[in-house]
Amino acid sequence: MKFEHVMEQMKDRMPEKRYIHTRGVAMTAVHLATKYGEDPEKAELAGILHDSVKYAEKEWLREKIISEKMNPILLDFHHELWHAPVGSYVAKHEFHIHDEDTLNAIKFHTTGRAGMSRLEKIIYVSDMIEPSRNFPGVELLREKAEIDLEDAMISCIQQSMIFLIEKKQSVFPDSFHCYNDLTQKKGKVNE
Amino acid sequence: MKFEHVMEQMKDRMPEKRYIHTRGVAMTAVHLATKYGEDPEKAELAGILHDSVKYAEKEWLREKIISEKMNPILLDFHHELWHAPVGSYVAKHEFHIHDEDTLNAIKFHTTGRAGMSRLEKIIYVSDMIEPSRNFPGVELLREKAEIDLEDAMISCIQQSMIFLIEKKQSVFPDSFHCYNDLTQKKGKVNE
Repeated sequence: MKFEHVMEQMKDRMPEKRYIHTRGVAMTAVHLATKYGEDPEKAELAGILHDSVKYAEKEWLREKIISEKMNPILLDFHHELWHAPVGSYVAKHEFHIHDEDTLNAIKFHTTGRAGMSRLEKIIYVSDMIEPSRNFPGVELLREKAEIDLEDAMISCIQQSMIFLIEKKQSVFPDSFHCYNDLTQKKGKVNE
Repeated sequence: MKFEHVMEQMKDRMPEKRYIHTRGVAMTAVHLATKYGEDPEKAELAGILHDSVKYAEKEWLREKIISEKMNPILLDFHHELWHAPVGSYVAKHEFHIHDEDTLNAIKFHTTGRAGMSRLEKIIYVSDMIEPSRNFPGVELLREKAEIDLEDAMISCIQQSMIFLIEKKQSVFPDSFHCYNDLTQKKGKVNE
């Protein structure tokens, strides 16, 4: 399937604003991939496809999680999380992407996870810092992403966790494991 | 062992400031126990004993965790956490406390855990709000504790998590499970 066709499909599936975000993520991901030695084509494709089912019906997403035997605890958490693993499924079965790393970058773009690949980090970070994002602290995240991908990733998951906890919303276990994995690797224990 | 003797022991084991904190926790715990239908004697004893090994040598704490086969992942986390499970061990073997709920209230007073008992919540909250505590937001926590123990507990674990995450410190899994357990019970999912 041609890249242009994938883009057209995305344009049809989401509001203008989300499409601008989608292109922003793809563009940022290409930039970071080039900077950090990742394949820019994979990064662009993952960026374009990451939100493909963001506007799908909640019940359809729920059914896919059940029928395709995805992690069942997803259903105990906010439905905002569901579009990522289902989006990965759609990337594979509708858009015929078979590269596991690309599929995982889509699958974990909302929660993160322990042991993320470089491409997964690039998509996670790009999703937070692409040019149309506008929240307090985004400029600092953009600066960090120019200097150190790992540091930017820690700051992004840190910001996501604090955002949820300040609202007393539950945190998906993958996000917690992602956060601890990164902070423990950084050696903040028993300093 | 007489209660007065336990208090004397504590006075000998910690600096004046920590002893004032210890008495504050016991006093607050008695107040909350009376308010929420818990045994005030258990609450007082758990409060007095909760920090018994706060000033023990780090290496001695490490050895106890290993020799007594406590949760080994404690050693991967900040040593600040170690005094709670070791304090519970000391309460049992040195002060001959055999009530499991009292021992657990000591054991989980720093991290919390999923499925905390009422007494465990009382000690966790008392440790944060006793009169000598003085940090931004403590007054609001005190007000909440007067109204609803569950709500106070969520706000306390929320504050602890944010405190750690803002410093990019790892979060002990029990704290994460405690937080998610409480927020999920409160039904913040898929609202």
